[in-house]
Amino acid sequence: MTTDASLSPANLLARLRETSPLVQCITNYVAMNFAANTLLAAGASPAMVHAPEESGEFAALAGALTVNIGTLSSEWVDGMKAAAQSANQAQKPWVLDPVAHFATAFRRDTTADLLKLRPTIIRGNASEIIALAGGQSAGQGVDSGDPVELAEDAACSLAQTQNAVVAVTGAVDFVTDGTRSVRIAGGSPLMPKITAMGCSLTALVGAFVAIAPDAPFEATIAALASFAAAGSHAAPNANGPGTFMMHFIDALYALSPETLNTNARIEILS
Amino acid sequence: MTTDASLSPANLLARLRETSPLVQCITNYVAMNFAANTLLAAGASPAMVHAPEESGEFAALAGALTVNIGTLSSEWVDGMKAAAQSANQAQKPWVLDPVAHFATAFRRDTTADLLKLRPTIIRGNASEIIALAGGQSAGQGVDSGDPVELAEDAACSLAQTQNAVVAVTGAVDFVTDGTRSVRIAGGSPLMPKITAMGCSLTALVGAFVAIAPDAPFEATIAALASFAAAGSHAAPNANGPGTFMMHFIDALYALSPETLNTNARIEILS
Amino acid sequence: MTTDASLSPANLLARLRETSPLVQCITNYVAMNFAANTLLAAGASPAMVHAPEESGEFAALAGALTVNIGTLSSEWVDGMKAAAQSANQAQKPWVLDPVAHFATAFRRDTTADLLKLRPTIIRGNASEIIALAGGQSAGQGVDSGDPVELAEDAACSLAQTQNAVVAVTGAVDFVTDGTRSVRIAGGSPLMPKITAMGCSLTALVGAFVAIAPDAPFEATIAALASFAAAGSHAAPNANGPGTFMMHFIDALYALSPETLNTNARIEILS
Repeated sequence: MTTDASLSPANLLARLRETSPLVQCITNYVAMNFAANTLLAAGASPAMVHAPEESGEFAALAGALTVNIGTLSSEWVDGMKAAAQSANQAQKPWVLDPVAHFATAFRRDTTADLLKLRPTIIRGNASEIIALAGGQSAGQGVDSGDPVELAEDAACSLAQTQNAVVAVTGAVDFVTDGTRSVRIAGGSPLMPKITAMGCSLTALVGAFVAIAPDAPFEATIAALASFAAAGSHAAPNANGPGTFMMHFIDALYALSPETLNTNARIEILS
Repeated sequence: MTTDASLSPANLLARLRETSPLVQCITNYVAMNFAANTLLAAGASPAMVHAPEESGEFAALAGALTVNIGTLSSEWVDGMKAAAQSANQAQKPWVLDPVAHFATAFRRDTTADLLKLRPTIIRGNASEIIALAGGQSAGQGVDSGDPVELAEDAACSLAQTQNAVVAVTGAVDFVTDGTRSVRIAGGSPLMPKITAMGCSLTALVGAFVAIAPDAPFEATIAALASFAAAGSHAAPNANGPGTFMMHFIDALYALSPETLNTNARIEILS
Repeated sequence: MTTDASLSPANLLARLRETSPLVQCITNYVAMNFAANTLLAAGASPAMVHAPEESGEFAALAGALTVNIGTLSSEWVDGMKAAAQSANQAQKPWVLDPVAHFATAFRRDTTADLLKLRPTIIRGNASEIIALAGGQSAGQGVDSGDPVELAEDAACSLAQTQNAVVAVTGAVDFVTDGTRSVRIAGGSPLMPKITAMGCSLTALVGAFVAIAPDAPFEATIAALASFAAAGSHAAPNANGPGTFMMHFIDALYALSPETLNTNARIEILS
């Protein structure tokens, strides 16, 4: 794996805090507020800009783009495509979060179109990644019905086909660029009980890749390690998913590169 | 009233936790996040799917559908109708929340169209239910200007006309199917000071009726009793509406069938 | 400045609590929930009504209208214009929040159109107000890149050109009607780390001007002073931006006219 220390999670977090990158998020209505607060807590500057009239223009200004299909409509799909095309033209990285892409024809078609626009990074839960790689998933709606382990092969295959970094998140996350792969542990069992945690993580991946556009694999690892560390730190203060949400934002805000360096639980597989 | 113990609030809550039903919510922008977190805390799997391109297809997959008109637009109205029609065809129950339906012509027309699609359950505040039954309400915008007691006759009349279960929620809730009726006490005076509590309760009614589609009256009672119990449990930990919100989600997550059985305050009227 | 004690922040807050004005908010998806909770905590009755089919009809019913362009789309722009025109016709005050208006052509055009409809009050961050007055700002996306002090002259100029009250909010707020001006201190350094705080403040300005439509300058001061006081009171209880949000809502809910009278930090400049 990389031996470039400047791309360690701790160093990337420090760089994120220093540079406060502008991150364009086209995300769903459920996640908008929590995703924006996640980015602010991490040190980035979120901007939710989706309309086809401006999404492309804005993508050229932003450091990175994230596209999440959680709550779709035709006009938004136009905005997503315009933004992804513009990001590609401006050589800005972009992240795709194919929420429940297998559930309806509209989602399948939208996801197929977005994949053609070559996302730099794809992040999903296990059921989403398995289905994206052509397998049979046990997903129901937006919640995963499969453990991450079962999606690792699908993730590697998808990474190679798409020439993208693929992240499968869950109890233990898995990240691969088709050649290298790692697992990242941490977080809390409460996290799947809170809506929009995955969507907010996608936004955070966008923030990290905005400051390391040439290292999407390392940026994804740094985002996932930061998220998992904040989750681990928040858990002891929470009495349930409601209080967890607030302590999670506090913990991400308080997370220092030094603490991340000590606490990140990254297993290098290849 | 029912003497079927398997339909008690405690037993329905236990079944909800075991089966984690998929609930499609077409709700307003204000409520999306809190409603999704309410469903997750209760044990259900929420999916916010509204576009006409997919809302009908999804309604056939989900265990129940909820439709809330809080923030309307034409495209969403099309999505609501497509979803309700599909739910009817697939014999899935659906819940209508006619937010401030009396405020504008657009809302009146939309609500009239949705009522023709025969919701299984209608949940509203007192002013909404009075106005829906043809009476003169004191409602201002989305907030009720009437106490629940004043809406009980209107609820019974509406339940008979619509052949639906009708729930009026407020300080003491009232539920009727036109023949049987109950009052449910509990909750906290802080609850009307938090936005989207009513909308989230509508979503929770959808979760309960998803696992008891043949018993919408009992499912509605179980949802309201669970919500009231969580509100009562959260109140002592809250210093105001902000902290209440988080403790409410924690309390709903922690609510056990046994506690609900002990704490539910249900008065059987007929 | 005014010597009319009935328009003091404390008296206006008392009046807001007594009369619970209906406030129509056309705001962005990120802010909807927090803005509604801010209005409820202050004692107002929020209604999020944006569709062109009903926004004008509703604006004639509401005590005031607020328009925030944070997440734009064509249909929403139509709804904003219809609502502003109706507010003008009904002689109801309305507040404009030109979020990141300089970022894209779509935002510039929309803002130019809305300014022609003569907002009663304009609230923005320093970069937004500087750019609105024709200057060169350091804004990046939705976050200000300039301190409030640098925007004071721009605010005075804009107030005169637009014949509007202009509020620039930040570490120390500035309010002017083109003749009179004040600075308002308070709040917490955590506030820029939470999304939608500015948008929610815009909504609160709407609530205050709804109960003092002939005194938009004093209403704006009262809103900003209340917001700053709640922020100051919340800060000691917060461990970061996550817990701050909840304590802020609690503090605004608990804020009494007497406390506001004692704690407001208003510096009269002219």
